[in-house]
Amino acid sequence: MTRTQPSSTARGRSQRDRVLRAAMDIFATQGFRGASLDAVADAVGMTRQGLLHYFPSKVQLLLGVLEVRNEDDIALVEQAIADSHAFADALVALARHNQQRPELIRLFTVLAAESVDAGHPGHDRFVERYRSARAGFTERIETEQREGRIDARIAPASLAVLLIAVMDGLQLQHLLDPASVDMAAPLAELLSLLAPVSPRT
Amino acid sequence: MTRTQPSSTARGRSQRDRVLRAAMDIFATQGFRGASLDAVADAVGMTRQGLLHYFPSKVQLLLGVLEVRNEDDIALVEQAIADSHAFADALVALARHNQQRPELIRLFTVLAAESVDAGHPGHDRFVERYRSARAGFTERIETEQREGRIDARIAPASLAVLLIAVMDGLQLQHLLDPASVDMAAPLAELLSLLAPVSPRT
Repeated sequence: MTRTQPSSTARGRSQRDRVLRAAMDIFATQGFRGASLDAVADAVGMTRQGLLHYFPSKVQLLLGVLEVRNEDDIALVEQAIADSHAFADALVALARHNQQRPELIRLFTVLAAESVDAGHPGHDRFVERYRSARAGFTERIETEQREGRIDARIAPASLAVLLIAVMDGLQLQHLLDPASVDMAAPLAELLSLLAPVSPRT
Repeated sequence: MTRTQPSSTARGRSQRDRVLRAAMDIFATQGFRGASLDAVADAVGMTRQGLLHYFPSKVQLLLGVLEVRNEDDIALVEQAIADSHAFADALVALARHNQQRPELIRLFTVLAAESVDAGHPGHDRFVERYRSARAGFTERIETEQREGRIDARIAPASLAVLLIAVMDGLQLQHLLDPASVDMAAPLAELLSLLAPVSPRT
């Protein structure tokens, strides 16, 4: 469909990537609503017209950014799970990794909050993203409970909502006050409380 | 200091309140960066000049909004604690109450996220707000642990960060997808797991 577009060539793809990266920086600081296409074009040394060749609108640019972020996140979670025996360890590793890339978590925090407005162009993507994250977490928690690694007294779907909430909330507090709030340590403490009760007492 | 300003009269105060309420609505949808003073003035049927009489800039208006929200929140938490025997019950009551006022929690979610940028005029207020919330929670959790109502295996300061994070994160998921995510029920489940282990086994 886009075969004849420049984005199908190697140079086109690399230009497109440069635009996406610049847009991430600018959305992370200004939000989607505060950001302008001109600022993104300036940052990559393109004209506005040149940029519109790759992304025909600010909304398309936002959707492009969200798609990249989503692919990155899925890859990261899968990698963290593959590297760790237990889901709890994978989540702590993910939080530690995210803490190393403040610009990216800031982008996510700002866009997710803006998109609670149903009129925001990222709204449906974020709704879908959280539904899919909750479903994935729930499935994994069920397995962990069956295998005796997570306290079975809490419903898997509730724990899924809670763990995602904790990670988002820690991210917000950390971004506001990095010296006071660590993203990984409190999560690890919570998860150790959620290990099954019997072997510990 | 502002004795001669119109806000010191009853009419002035009520006009000021109307402006604040309109600003809350508009900031909640557009964010601080996306909102315009003209939109707020329109919403209350004032000229821009009339509005500037009460709040000399958009930043001052934002600070006014944050101050109202902060006073409301403190009053609410205190009320919830006074009404409930246990801190856990107070937090669940607060979550349930907040769920009834989506416009207000949306305002808070959007402004808090925007303000992670150190250049945002609400930044310092939010940093301070979270520090003070963490300190208040920590103190209360210490008491609850001493009185045997919260599991003493977790550090009070860590649990304070975590509970605030959970409440913020649940708020975000609820705002995005109200039919799928309840703000109070998962929190109540988590808190019941955090009751001391010994009496239950």
